[in-house]
Amino acid sequence: MPSTRIQLDGTSLPEFETLVDSDSHEGSLSEQGDWSIGFGQFWGGLSANVEILELNNGRMSVYVLPTRGMGIWRAECDGVPIGWQSPVKGPVHPAFVNLQNRNGLGWLDGFDELVARCGLAFNGPPGHDDGAASPIESDITLHGRVANLAARDLEAIVDEEQSLLGVSGTVDEKTLFGPQFEMRSTTWTRPGSTTFSIRDEITNVGSRPTELELIYHNNFGKPFLSEGSVLECPTRRVVPRDARAAENIRNYQTYLGPTPGYTEQAYFFDLIADDDGETVALLRNQAADSGIAVRFQTSQLPCFCVWKCTQDEAAGYVTGLEPGTNFPNFKAFERHHGRVRIIEPGETYLAEIHFDVLGSAEAVGEVHERISRLQGQFDVQLDSQPVAPYCPID
Amino acid sequence: MPSTRIQLDGTSLPEFETLVDSDSHEGSLSEQGDWSIGFGQFWGGLSANVEILELNNGRMSVYVLPTRGMGIWRAECDGVPIGWQSPVKGPVHPAFVNLQNRNGLGWLDGFDELVARCGLAFNGPPGHDDGAASPIESDITLHGRVANLAARDLEAIVDEEQSLLGVSGTVDEKTLFGPQFEMRSTTWTRPGSTTFSIRDEITNVGSRPTELELIYHNNFGKPFLSEGSVLECPTRRVVPRDARAAENIRNYQTYLGPTPGYTEQAYFFDLIADDDGETVALLRNQAADSGIAVRFQTSQLPCFCVWKCTQDEAAGYVTGLEPGTNFPNFKAFERHHGRVRIIEPGETYLAEIHFDVLGSAEAVGEVHERISRLQGQFDVQLDSQPVAPYCPID
Amino acid sequence: MPSTRIQLDGTSLPEFETLVDSDSHEGSLSEQGDWSIGFGQFWGGLSANVEILELNNGRMSVYVLPTRGMGIWRAECDGVPIGWQSPVKGPVHPAFVNLQNRNGLGWLDGFDELVARCGLAFNGPPGHDDGAASPIESDITLHGRVANLAARDLEAIVDEEQSLLGVSGTVDEKTLFGPQFEMRSTTWTRPGSTTFSIRDEITNVGSRPTELELIYHNNFGKPFLSEGSVLECPTRRVVPRDARAAENIRNYQTYLGPTPGYTEQAYFFDLIADDDGETVALLRNQAADSGIAVRFQTSQLPCFCVWKCTQDEAAGYVTGLEPGTNFPNFKAFERHHGRVRIIEPGETYLAEIHFDVLGSAEAVGEVHERISRLQGQFDVQLDSQPVAPYCPID
Repeated sequence: MPSTRIQLDGTSLPEFETLVDSDSHEGSLSEQGDWSIGFGQFWGGLSANVEILELNNGRMSVYVLPTRGMGIWRAECDGVPIGWQSPVKGPVHPAFVNLQNRNGLGWLDGFDELVARCGLAFNGPPGHDDGAASPIESDITLHGRVANLAARDLEAIVDEEQSLLGVSGTVDEKTLFGPQFEMRSTTWTRPGSTTFSIRDEITNVGSRPTELELIYHNNFGKPFLSEGSVLECPTRRVVPRDARAAENIRNYQTYLGPTPGYTEQAYFFDLIADDDGETVALLRNQAADSGIAVRFQTSQLPCFCVWKCTQDEAAGYVTGLEPGTNFPNFKAFERHHGRVRIIEPGETYLAEIHFDVLGSAEAVGEVHERISRLQGQFDVQLDSQPVAPYCPID
Repeated sequence: MPSTRIQLDGTSLPEFETLVDSDSHEGSLSEQGDWSIGFGQFWGGLSANVEILELNNGRMSVYVLPTRGMGIWRAECDGVPIGWQSPVKGPVHPAFVNLQNRNGLGWLDGFDELVARCGLAFNGPPGHDDGAASPIESDITLHGRVANLAARDLEAIVDEEQSLLGVSGTVDEKTLFGPQFEMRSTTWTRPGSTTFSIRDEITNVGSRPTELELIYHNNFGKPFLSEGSVLECPTRRVVPRDARAAENIRNYQTYLGPTPGYTEQAYFFDLIADDDGETVALLRNQAADSGIAVRFQTSQLPCFCVWKCTQDEAAGYVTGLEPGTNFPNFKAFERHHGRVRIIEPGETYLAEIHFDVLGSAEAVGEVHERISRLQGQFDVQLDSQPVAPYCPID
Repeated sequence: MPSTRIQLDGTSLPEFETLVDSDSHEGSLSEQGDWSIGFGQFWGGLSANVEILELNNGRMSVYVLPTRGMGIWRAECDGVPIGWQSPVKGPVHPAFVNLQNRNGLGWLDGFDELVARCGLAFNGPPGHDDGAASPIESDITLHGRVANLAARDLEAIVDEEQSLLGVSGTVDEKTLFGPQFEMRSTTWTRPGSTTFSIRDEITNVGSRPTELELIYHNNFGKPFLSEGSVLECPTRRVVPRDARAAENIRNYQTYLGPTPGYTEQAYFFDLIADDDGETVALLRNQAADSGIAVRFQTSQLPCFCVWKCTQDEAAGYVTGLEPGTNFPNFKAFERHHGRVRIIEPGETYLAEIHFDVLGSAEAVGEVHERISRLQGQFDVQLDSQPVAPYCPID
C-alpha cells in the first residue's frame, strides 16, 4: 500500500519562460550556438514572487534577480557553479528583509548573491550620519537599499551590432525630499563566451546634487575559493581594515580552507590600472588551473576591498572581491575622506565590471602575467595597522 | 539583421478587467453614456501586485488603489491629468515601504498619490508620543499606517436609486491591545460628471475609546498648479506653520512656477462654511479658466492646511489642499489643543470630500463667486508668525 | 431597475485545490472516511498571497499557514470552531507586519492564530539584550521572527504505515553571522480523529552553538473559553507573572466571561508529567461537557504559561495555554535562569504537541481524571507574588 508525499514546491530554480533564443531569433546571432534568455518567478517560502532572468549564452548561464535590485544570484559555466552557499536560503523577497532589524544589520537576512550591490545613497555599517543633508538621509542601515528594491522595465536584449545578449532593468531608489536615483542595469555576455559583464548607469533624476556610494559585493565560494586559493591584483598598497585583518596582513593573498570559528578579515587596496584605465583582480585555485577574474576601470571604481570569510561551509565559506566608489566604512568617514561622490542633477554615473571565468592553466596564466606586468615597477606597501585615509584607526 | 529588445513590463497602467459597464449593466444608468468599472493589478518593480480600480464615468477616470489604503492614485478628466508627478515612481507596494526607515519618515518612499490619507491612529511628524495610552501607540511614524494597508472586500457599485457609480473597500488598521479601526471607503461619481467624491466611514470596532487623526493629503501638480495659480478659500484666519511659511504670508494665495531650491511652506486655515456646513477651496490657474475645487463639511473636517511645494518638476512640483480632523502637527500637540478625536466603541466617523474639475472660466467663476459670498462679512486675519493653538511656536 | 454590487473578494477562506483525498489515494487509508488535503491562497487585503493548507480528516479541518511560519490559523471539529476571534483581521501577510513598529511590538499586528510560534532565536518582550553574542542578535522584537517567515518545501503526507495524514513545511530563520535554524514542521492527524498534532524539528544548520527560545502560543476563544470555563493541569506550583496576575492567584483556574476593561493576567507553572514524560492541560467549559486538552512532553517543553485575556469579544476574548522551552520573560532574564537552550551545530531540537478536542462529558471526565491522578500526591504551591526564578520581581 503506497504512502504518498506530494511536493508543492521546493525546486531550486523556477520554470523559465523563453523570451528569445537562437531558434526564434532572426539574425546572425542565431547561428552562434544554442543560447536563450528566459524569465521565471519563484513561488513558496521566502522566495515567493521573486523574479529571475536567465541569460544563457550556450556555455554559461547567468541568473539575474530583478526583484533584488538586478543582483546576480549565481552563474554557471561549463557546469561549474559561480557564487557561494550563503547560510541564507535565497533568493529572499525584500518583503522578508527589514533593513531596520538587527540594529540596522537586517540586510544580512537577504544576502546570498554572487553580485549584490551596496548603495546607492549609502552603504557600509549602520548608524546615524551627522553629516547628512536631512533626517531623511541620516538613518543609515547596512549596505543601503538598492539590493532590496525591485526593478521595472525589464528587457531582454539581442544586439546584432555589438554581438551581445543581455538583460536590463531599472531600479528606482527615490523618495520625496531625498535621493532620487535611477539605475539602468544591464547584464550581458556574448554567445559561447566565458565572460559576463555588468553595465550600470546611475542617474540623478532629481534636482539637487546628491551623494552616491556604490560597492559591488562580488562573492565567490567553492570551487574558485578553496584551501590554497590565491588572490592576485596589481596594487600599490594593502591596508588591513582592523586589528583582526592586521594579524594576517602578510598572508593577505592566500586563503584557508573552510575553518570553523574563522573571523572575517578585510583589506583595502589601491589598485594599478593599465593605460586604458582597467585593472584586474584574480581569484584562482592553488593549482592555478581554475579561477575568476574581475575587471573594471579604476576611474569608475577607484576603491577595492577584499573580504576574506573562510569560515566553515555551513556558516558561509566566501570571499568578496569588491570594487567600489568608496570603501565599506561608515558613510561619514568616507565623506570626510572625499570618497562620497556628488552626482549633479541629470548626471549619470557609469560603472562596469567584467567577470572572466578561467577554466585552464593557460587562461589563469594569462591573467597572472597581466597582473605581474601591471605590478611591474611598483612595490607593494603592506601596512601593519589600519591607517587613514583608508579606514578609521581604533 | 534585426536586433531585438523584448519588453517584459513597464506599462504605466496595467490591463483592466471590466467588472461592469454601460453595455453589460441593465438599468437606466446604462443609457447615460459609456462608463465602466474595471480592476487591474500591476506587475514588476516596486508596483508588483498593487491592485487598482478604474472608475470611468465616460468623461473622467478615477484610479483607486486598494493595496494602498484606497488612496486615489490619479484621475483624468477630458484628457487632463489630475494628480502630480512625484519623484517616487509609484504606485509603490507597501512591502517596499518601511515606515521606520529614514528616522520614521519612510512614508515618503511610497508617496505619489492624488489623495493619500494620513491616519488613522496618528498622523503628522514622527516621534515618541508621551501621551499615548501604551507603548503600542506611542511610536509615531510620519502620517500613520493607513496609506500602506491593503483593503479587502472590494466592490464595484452601480446604484440606480442614487444614480451613481462607485468602488468600495475596507481597510483594517487594527492590532491587539491597540487601535481597532475599520474604514469603509467609497469613491464615487455620476455618469458624465466632472465631480468625483470620497465617502469614508471609520468605525471603532474595538471596545475602548480610541484616538483618531485623519488628514486627506490631496495633491495637485500641473496643469492646475502652474506659475500664477491662485488658491481661494473663505477663511477667518491664515497662520504660517513656521518661520519659512511666515516669510511669504502675504502671498499665501499665489503660486510660483517650478522653482529650483524652493523650500516647502504650509499654512493653516479656519475656513468658513455655508448654512449647510459646507466649505470649498479652489485651486485655479492664472487665466482663471481651469481649476479644481475641493468641497467638504467643516463639522467633519474642521482643519485645513495648504502645502505649497513649488520646487522644480524633477523634485516634485505640487500643492496640497488638505482638510483634516487635525492639523499636521505632532500628535501630542494636537491632543493638547483638543484636535485628536476620541471615537467611542461602535462609533463611526464619517468624512466626505468632493472634487470638482472646472474646465471653463464660467465654472471657475462660479466657485470664485461662491467663495466671495462666503468670505463676505468676514475679514481675513493674516498672522505674521506661527501662533498657538494652530502650531507650535519655535 | 437593478442596482449592482459586484464583490471582488472578501471570502473568509480561499478556494482550495485538492492535493490528495480519500478518492484519489490508493491504499487502505482511502477506506477510512472522506478526508482530503488541499492548498489555497488568499487574495485581497492584508491576506493577499497568504498560502493555506487544509488538513481535513473527515471530522476535523485544520488550517495551516505556510506563509506565517506554519502557524495553525484555526481548526474546526464537528462544526465547532477552534481558535479565537482576534481583533486583527487575518491571516496577515508578513509584508504587512513590521516587527520594529510599535516600539518592537509590531508582532501584534499579525497575531490571530490558534497556534502561533514564538521564537526561534528569541521570544518574549522587546528590548536590547546585553548578553547577546553580537549586535546581529541583541535587537529583540516581541516574540521573534518565526511566525512571520514563510515556509518552503511544502508537502502533503499520506502515511499508510503510521496511518496518518499531514502537511509539512520548512521555515528558515537564518542570517549571515547569526542564528541559522531550519524548522521542519509537520501538522498531522488521523482519519476521523478528534486529535491533531504538531511535530517540529528545529535544526541548527550553522556551525556554532546557537541560542533557542520556543513558545507555542496556543490560543482559544469561544466556545471552549466562556464564563465559568476552567483550567486544569497537574502542577507543583503556580506563580503570578506580575502584580496584576497576583490579584487573582486564588482564581487562576477559573475564567470570566467577556469583561470590558479586563487587563490580561499570566501565570507560570511547573507541570507534573507521567511516567512517559507527558503532561496535559485542559481547558473545559463550566458544564464540563466540552473542552480541549493540550498534551506535550515536559522534557521538550518544560515551561508552561497560561495567558488569561478575558476582555470583551471585540477586543479579543482569549486564553493561551502555552508550553515552551522558556517562560515569556525578556531573553536576558531567561538566559540568567538557564532557560535559553543552546543548540549545537547539527543538533535537532524536537517539540511535539497534541490537541484533543473533547466533545462530551465523558471525554472531558477522562482528562480530568488523568490530571487528578497526576496531581495525586503533590500539593499545589500558589505564590502570592511574582518570584524568581519564574519571573522578574518588580
